[in-house]
Amino acid sequence: MSTGYFGDIKPVRYEGPDSTNPLAYRHYNADEVVLGKRLEDHLRFAVAYWHTFAWPGGDPFGGQTFERPWFGETMENAKLKADVAFELFSLLGVPYYCFHDADVRPEGATFAESAKRLDEIADYFEGKMAKTGVKLLWGTANLFSNRRFMAGAATNPDPDVFAYAAATVKHCMDVTKRLKGENYVLWGGREGYETLLNTDMGRELDQLGRFLNLVVDYKHRSGFTGTILIEPKPQEPTKHQYDYDVATVYGFLKKYGLENEVKVNIEQGHAILAGHSFEHELATANALGIFGSIDMNRNDYQSGWDTDQFPNNVPEMALAYYQVLAGGGFKSGGTNFDAKLRRQSLDPEDLLVAHVGGMDACARGLKAAAKMIEDKALSAPLDARYAGWNSAEAKAMLAGERSLEQIAARVVADGIEPQPKSGRQEYLENVVNRYV
Amino acid sequence: MSTGYFGDIKPVRYEGPDSTNPLAYRHYNADEVVLGKRLEDHLRFAVAYWHTFAWPGGDPFGGQTFERPWFGETMENAKLKADVAFELFSLLGVPYYCFHDADVRPEGATFAESAKRLDEIADYFEGKMAKTGVKLLWGTANLFSNRRFMAGAATNPDPDVFAYAAATVKHCMDVTKRLKGENYVLWGGREGYETLLNTDMGRELDQLGRFLNLVVDYKHRSGFTGTILIEPKPQEPTKHQYDYDVATVYGFLKKYGLENEVKVNIEQGHAILAGHSFEHELATANALGIFGSIDMNRNDYQSGWDTDQFPNNVPEMALAYYQVLAGGGFKSGGTNFDAKLRRQSLDPEDLLVAHVGGMDACARGLKAAAKMIEDKALSAPLDARYAGWNSAEAKAMLAGERSLEQIAARVVADGIEPQPKSGRQEYLENVVNRYV
Amino acid sequence: MSTGYFGDIKPVRYEGPDSTNPLAYRHYNADEVVLGKRLEDHLRFAVAYWHTFAWPGGDPFGGQTFERPWFGETMENAKLKADVAFELFSLLGVPYYCFHDADVRPEGATFAESAKRLDEIADYFEGKMAKTGVKLLWGTANLFSNRRFMAGAATNPDPDVFAYAAATVKHCMDVTKRLKGENYVLWGGREGYETLLNTDMGRELDQLGRFLNLVVDYKHRSGFTGTILIEPKPQEPTKHQYDYDVATVYGFLKKYGLENEVKVNIEQGHAILAGHSFEHELATANALGIFGSIDMNRNDYQSGWDTDQFPNNVPEMALAYYQVLAGGGFKSGGTNFDAKLRRQSLDPEDLLVAHVGGMDACARGLKAAAKMIEDKALSAPLDARYAGWNSAEAKAMLAGERSLEQIAARVVADGIEPQPKSGRQEYLENVVNRYV
Amino acid sequence: MSTGYFGDIKPVRYEGPDSTNPLAYRHYNADEVVLGKRLEDHLRFAVAYWHTFAWPGGDPFGGQTFERPWFGETMENAKLKADVAFELFSLLGVPYYCFHDADVRPEGATFAESAKRLDEIADYFEGKMAKTGVKLLWGTANLFSNRRFMAGAATNPDPDVFAYAAATVKHCMDVTKRLKGENYVLWGGREGYETLLNTDMGRELDQLGRFLNLVVDYKHRSGFTGTILIEPKPQEPTKHQYDYDVATVYGFLKKYGLENEVKVNIEQGHAILAGHSFEHELATANALGIFGSIDMNRNDYQSGWDTDQFPNNVPEMALAYYQVLAGGGFKSGGTNFDAKLRRQSLDPEDLLVAHVGGMDACARGLKAAAKMIEDKALSAPLDARYAGWNSAEAKAMLAGERSLEQIAARVVADGIEPQPKSGRQEYLENVVNRYV
Repeated sequence: MSTGYFGDIKPVRYEGPDSTNPLAYRHYNADEVVLGKRLEDHLRFAVAYWHTFAWPGGDPFGGQTFERPWFGETMENAKLKADVAFELFSLLGVPYYCFHDADVRPEGATFAESAKRLDEIADYFEGKMAKTGVKLLWGTANLFSNRRFMAGAATNPDPDVFAYAAATVKHCMDVTKRLKGENYVLWGGREGYETLLNTDMGRELDQLGRFLNLVVDYKHRSGFTGTILIEPKPQEPTKHQYDYDVATVYGFLKKYGLENEVKVNIEQGHAILAGHSFEHELATANALGIFGSIDMNRNDYQSGWDTDQFPNNVPEMALAYYQVLAGGGFKSGGTNFDAKLRRQSLDPEDLLVAHVGGMDACARGLKAAAKMIEDKALSAPLDARYAGWNSAEAKAMLAGERSLEQIAARVVADGIEPQPKSGRQEYLENVVNRYV
Repeated sequence: MSTGYFGDIKPVRYEGPDSTNPLAYRHYNADEVVLGKRLEDHLRFAVAYWHTFAWPGGDPFGGQTFERPWFGETMENAKLKADVAFELFSLLGVPYYCFHDADVRPEGATFAESAKRLDEIADYFEGKMAKTGVKLLWGTANLFSNRRFMAGAATNPDPDVFAYAAATVKHCMDVTKRLKGENYVLWGGREGYETLLNTDMGRELDQLGRFLNLVVDYKHRSGFTGTILIEPKPQEPTKHQYDYDVATVYGFLKKYGLENEVKVNIEQGHAILAGHSFEHELATANALGIFGSIDMNRNDYQSGWDTDQFPNNVPEMALAYYQVLAGGGFKSGGTNFDAKLRRQSLDPEDLLVAHVGGMDACARGLKAAAKMIEDKALSAPLDARYAGWNSAEAKAMLAGERSLEQIAARVVADGIEPQPKSGRQEYLENVVNRYV
Repeated sequence: MSTGYFGDIKPVRYEGPDSTNPLAYRHYNADEVVLGKRLEDHLRFAVAYWHTFAWPGGDPFGGQTFERPWFGETMENAKLKADVAFELFSLLGVPYYCFHDADVRPEGATFAESAKRLDEIADYFEGKMAKTGVKLLWGTANLFSNRRFMAGAATNPDPDVFAYAAATVKHCMDVTKRLKGENYVLWGGREGYETLLNTDMGRELDQLGRFLNLVVDYKHRSGFTGTILIEPKPQEPTKHQYDYDVATVYGFLKKYGLENEVKVNIEQGHAILAGHSFEHELATANALGIFGSIDMNRNDYQSGWDTDQFPNNVPEMALAYYQVLAGGGFKSGGTNFDAKLRRQSLDPEDLLVAHVGGMDACARGLKAAAKMIEDKALSAPLDARYAGWNSAEAKAMLAGERSLEQIAARVVADGIEPQPKSGRQEYLENVVNRYV
Repeated sequence: MSTGYFGDIKPVRYEGPDSTNPLAYRHYNADEVVLGKRLEDHLRFAVAYWHTFAWPGGDPFGGQTFERPWFGETMENAKLKADVAFELFSLLGVPYYCFHDADVRPEGATFAESAKRLDEIADYFEGKMAKTGVKLLWGTANLFSNRRFMAGAATNPDPDVFAYAAATVKHCMDVTKRLKGENYVLWGGREGYETLLNTDMGRELDQLGRFLNLVVDYKHRSGFTGTILIEPKPQEPTKHQYDYDVATVYGFLKKYGLENEVKVNIEQGHAILAGHSFEHELATANALGIFGSIDMNRNDYQSGWDTDQFPNNVPEMALAYYQVLAGGGFKSGGTNFDAKLRRQSLDPEDLLVAHVGGMDACARGLKAAAKMIEDKALSAPLDARYAGWNSAEAKAMLAGERSLEQIAARVVADGIEPQPKSGRQEYLENVVNRYV
C-alpha cells in the first residue's frame, strides 16, 4: 500500500547515542521522561508540508532541482503527495504536521473552485489522520505567492484583495477546525511595503488591525478553540513587513486591542533576520505574555535572506528550549520544522535524514535545557543578582510608592554611591557548556 | 572677548548656491520662507554639546586625536568649553543646542557635588543664552558612561543604581526646565542586556516602565512643559537595548500606559542599525502618533556600529524631511546634529565646516521635500492608489461593520477575482529625482 | 511593423532638466560633450536582456507577476521577445545590449539542439542589429540556472559538468564574436560552495583556474578581440562564491597567471553584498589594473540579497563615475543596467520609465564627476596630502633604496616624532556636494 | 612571592568532564595524546597580554570598568602587570603568551625612550620566562593606537610616519627575536582608509608592499627564524583595511612577491566581520598555502563590530580545528586567545574562568576534529564526491592537455548530458553532530 517513494526504509527508531545509523535517533526517545513529561509531549514535533513536499528546489538564480513524482498541478498529484507525506510522518514517528492551503491542492480557476479542492483534500487528510494518528498542529493560508497578493493581502490598496484574503482565511480556519488543528497561523509575508513612496503606512496598519479583529471574532463565533498565532518576520519577500519581530507585534496587538487573543509563532530564521537571537525573541514573548509556538530551523548568520536550514547547532538550541521551558513549555504550540533541504539534497533519503538530524538536535537541546532548569544552573545566579530588589524600599520604588523627588532626596540623604558587581558572563557561558 | 579658538573666522552667512566659500551657506537661508514658514523655524537646528565639544576622537583601537584647550576635568575648563561652544553657536547662527550633564561639567566625588557643579554651569549657560539668544532644544542625563551604570540605569539589578539614576534625571530635568529647554530626552544606552544568561527581561522592563512613569509624573508636578522624548537604538553599547526602534518603543509605552505622554527622538544612525531606513522610522512614528524630534546624522551603511557622521546625502535627507513635513513638521522638536567629526578632522575649522555642510544639506533636503508637498508629487499618486477604499462597502469593511463570514459570502457571490495594478516604484523614484 | 507592445510611445528625447515628461531625458543628452567626449561615448549604455525581457517577477515567496506576450518556451516567442527588445533599445536610444544564451532562446533537449537554437537567434539578432545600429556590449553563458550546474560549472565535482560548461562557453564566445561583442563576461554564480563539508576548495580553485585559462587560450586562437571579464559577487546563489570581490579575483588571476588577460565587470549590488562601496571596488580595480566594465544598478543596503534595483542616488553615482573617469574611462566596457523592475511594476511603460530614470541619473552622476575632475576638486587636495612623498629621502624609502635598519637609524638620529594633520573629510564631502 | 592578585587560587588542573569546579579543566588534559601528539602540542595555547592585562573595559559609550592595581603609566606598574601576567600563565598552565610593545610598557616621550623602556621590560620578561617556562608565541608592534598613526602607519600620507613605523617594527622584531618568539605578527589596523575622498589607494598599497618587503628582508638579515604573519581584518577601526581577508592578503602578497615569505594569523572575529565563517578563512589559507596561526575568539554574529569574546560554541570550533588539522596542524603558529572579558566581568576570578572555559572548548573542538579525521568521517564522502576526476580524460582536462575546442567536440560527440547528484549536506551535518 506504500507509494514506494522511500524504498524499503523502515520506521526510524531510537538506537541511542552510539548508533551510527543515519536513519536512527541517537537522542530523541519519544517516551523518555524529562521534567515529568515525555519528550514527545515536550517537543511536539511537526513536519511542514510546504518545504518538505511542495518546494521544487529553486532559488533566485536557478530553477527546480527536485524531481518529485507528485509535482504537477492536479488533484491526483495532490493525493499522491499526501500519501507520501503521511508515509514520511509515520516513518519519522512525528505527532503533527502543518500546512497552507496552497501546498496541499492546486489552486482553482475561481475562489469557489479552490475552496472545493481544499475541502476534497481535507477529506483525504481526515482519513489518513485517523489511520496514522498524526495530528494537525496548525493550518494557515498562503496569502503571498499568488500575484493578486503582490501588494499585500489585508494591507492591499485594493479592498477586493482584502475581501479575497478574508474569505480565504475564513475557509482555511474552517478546514483547520474540521481537522482539529490546535492553532491557526497568520504569516504576513506581503503585509508591509516595497517602497514608502507608494505606501500609506497608517492606513495599512489599520487595515491589518481590522483584519485580525475579524479573524479573532470569527474564531470565537465559529467555536474554533485553537490559538491564533502571528509569525513575525522583518522583511523578505517585502522590503519591510509590519510584523517585524515579537516586540513590534506586541505593540500592534496592543494598538488594536488583541494582546489577549493572539500569540506569536517564532521562527529562528526570522529572529536572525530581525537582528535578534532566537532566545531573545522567545524571552521577549515570555516577558510580554504572547509566546505560542516555534518554527525550528536555522538561518545562516552570514546570508541576508531566509535560508531555512535544518537546525543543527545544539548549544544554540539548548538556549532556545531553555526559554521555552522557562516560560512553562508549549501549550497549544509545538516544534515545527519550517526548514527546507538544501537544493542539492536530491534523494528521498535526504528528506528523512534531515528530519532525523533536526529532531535529534532538538532532543539534545531540550534535554540540556531541562537539566539546567532542574539544577537551577542559571536561575540560582539570576535570583542572586537581583536580590537587592527584595528589600522593602526597592519594592516600594518599583510599585510606584515613591516619587522621583522622594527617591532623589534619599540618594542625597543616604549618600548613595552604587558600586558595580561582576556580571559573570563567562562563568555562566561555561556553566551552559557543562550541559551542552 | 572671544576665546580666539576659531581665529578670525566671521559668522557664517548665506551666499547662495554658487558660492565656493567653505564657510558660507549655499542653501541655508534662515529667513527664506517655505510652506509659509521661515527655514530656521522649519529646521530648528541644534548643535550637540557632547560630540562637538567633549569627544576626544578615540575609537576602540585608538586614543585621543583632538587636542582641545578645554580638555581636562576642571570647572575652569568647563567654562572655557562653554565659551567656545557659544562662539560656535553664534558663528553658525543656530538657534539651539542640546547637552548631557556629563558633557558640560566634570563629575564630582559625590552625587551632591556633581549636582552642584551642574547648577554652576547652568548659571553660566543662562548668562550666555541671554547674551546670544541661543536656546536649549533639550537636556538629558548621561546614564551610560560611568561604570556604575555598566549593567543599566533604570534596569540595573541593583536598586541603588535605579535610585541614583532617578535622582540624576530629576536634577537634569530641573536644570532643563530652568534653561527653558523645549524637550527632555532619555537615551537608554545601558537599558538592555549584554547576555540573556544573567538577565530577567520581564523584571527589567517593569523597572524601566516604572522609571518612565516616575519621570512623567514629575514632569507634570514640577511644571515642566517640554516634551519627554525617548531615543530608540537597537544595540551598541549593549548587545540589546530595550528601546530598539520606534515600533518597539510604542509597544513599551502602551504596556506602561505612556503612549500619550512620551514621544520619540529618532536618529538616522540608530534607524540604520535597527535595519530600517530613517524615513521608515519617521513614518512609523507618524503612523503611531509619537513623533517628536530628530538627530540628524548619517551612519555608514556598511559599518555595523554607530558612525555618527555629519549628513550629506541630500536625496535621502529629502525623504526624511518629507516624512517630517507630512506629519506636520516639528512641534517642540528640531534637527539636532548628533554627529561627530571624523577623528582625523583635527582643526578648529573642521568643526565649523562640518556643521555648515550638514546644515546646507538639511536645507536642500527640506526645500525639496516642501516642493514635493506643494506639488502633491507623491501624495496625488498615493491617493489614487488607495481610492478603492473610498467605496461604501470598503469603508464598512474597514469600520468593522462586516463580519468575516459576510465578506467571504460576498467574495463568492460576486465572484471577486482581484487583478493587481502596477505599483510604479521606478516612476515615483524618478519623480523624487526631479526634486533632489 | 512594431509589435505594439509599447503602444504609441515615441522615442525618448532629451528635453532638459525642467521637463516633467516621464518619458523624456532631463539630463542625458547623448551628444553633449564632456571632457572632450560625447556623453553616449562616455556612458556606453547597455540594456540587459535577462532582467528586462526574461524575468517573470518571481521572488522566493511568490511566482510570476509579469505577463509578457512572449513568455513560453518556443522559438516563436523568442523572436517576439527579440522584436520587443530591439524596439525598446530603439525607443531608448541606447547603443548597446547584453545577453546570456538562456535569455534569448529556449533550451533544447540536447546540447546540440540548444546550440542550434542559439545560432538561429543569433541570425535573427544580426538582422536587427544591422537595421537598428544597436551593438552588443557583451555576451555570456548562463551556467547557473539549470540543475546540472547546481554544484558548480567549472568547479563541479563531476568532470562532465566541467566539459559541458566548457562547450557552452565556447559556443557563446563564438556567437559573441559573430555579433561583434566587445567583451565576453563570466559570472560564476555557482562557482563556490553551499557547505565546506562537501567541498575541496583547493581542487575547485584549480578547476576554475584551468577553465579560465582554456577560455583565454581559445580567445586568442579564435581571433576574438573583445575583453574577457569576470564579474565578482560574494554569495547568493551559493553560500560562498570564489569570485568574491575585486581583490579576491585579482589574487585568483595572479595565482593562475591571468592578471594581464582578464578584467572585471563590477556590479554595484555585488559590491554592496561584499561589504564594499561601489567606488571602493572601482578604485581597487584601478589600483590593481583590472578595471573593465560596470553593471549599474543599486542594492538595498538593508536587504541582504541582490535586489538589482534601477539606480537613482545621484551623489553615490557621481562618486562611482569619478572612479571610472579617474581610471581613464571605459575602454571596451560600458554601463550595463543589470537591474530589474520591482515585481509590482507591471506595465510596459514601467520598463521604459525605469531605464529613462536610470540613464538620467547616470548622466547627472557622470557630469558631476567630470566637473570635479576638470576643477581638480578632489585631486588637488589629494596631491597636497601626499606631497611629503616627493622628497628625495621618501622616494628612496619607497623605491627600496633604504633598509629597515637605515630607516630606523634615521628616526633615532633625527628625533622624528610625526605630527598628524587633519584629514578634512567633512570639507571634502562638502566639496562633493557642490557638484551633485 | 605571589602578588596575591588571584588570592589563594591554585593552579588549574584537569578534573575530567564531570567536574563542576569552575577553575578546573573538564576537557583540556595537556598530556592527552590525540593523533599521535599531546593536546598541548596540538593547541599551543597563548594568552594575549593586551586584552587580558591592559584593557580597561571601556566601550564607545563608557569608560573604564576594570580596576587593576597595575593601571597607570609607570614602569613600576608595568612590572607589577608582568608579575600578575606570569602568575596567570602559570595558574592556567599555558605554554605561550603574545604581546604588543604598547601593552607591556608605557610609551616614552621620544622614540628612543619608548625603545629603552621596551628593552627594560624585555629583560624582566626574560627572567620570568626562564623561571616559569612560558614561551613567546609572537610579538607585535601597536601601530594603531597613538594619534600619530591615525591616518595609517606604512600607508600614511606622511613619509615620516612610515619611517617611524618602520623603526618601531624593527625594534619589536629585535625584542621578539631576543625572547625567542616563534612568530612576528603585523596587524594593519590603520592600513586602510576612512574615506576614499582623501585616499590614493594605489600609492598606499605600494607603500604597504614596500614596508612588508623591508620587514621580510630584515628578518632574513637579522637571523630571526620565526614566521612573519599578517592578520587580516576587513574594517574597524578604519572604514576599510587593505588586509581585508585571507584571499585579499594572498593577492597582495602575490603582487609584491611575498607569497612564500608571509603567512596569515586568522582571527575568528575578523573572519565574521568580513562575511566569512572562520573555517572558510582557514580553508582558504590552506588552499592558498599561507596558513600560519589563529586568534581564537568569538564574534557576536549580530553585532557589527569586533566583540572579541571568549569562544564557547564547540560545534563551530570543531569545524575550525578540523581545517587546522586537515592542513597539517600548527607549525610555528598556535591558538592565541585574542579575547577580552565582557566589561561587566570585574573580578580577578573572571580572568581565569574565561580562559579555562575557552581552553576547554578548544580541547573539545580539537578532539572532535581529530576523531573525524581518524574516522575519515568527512574525507571519505569527499573523496567519493570528486572521484570522477580520477578518470584519465578528466585528469587530462585539468592538466591543460585538452583545448576548449576539444572538450566541446567531445561533449557533442559523446552526447554528454550530466545528471546532478545529491550533495548530502544534511547527512554530513548529522555526521558532524555525532562528534560534537
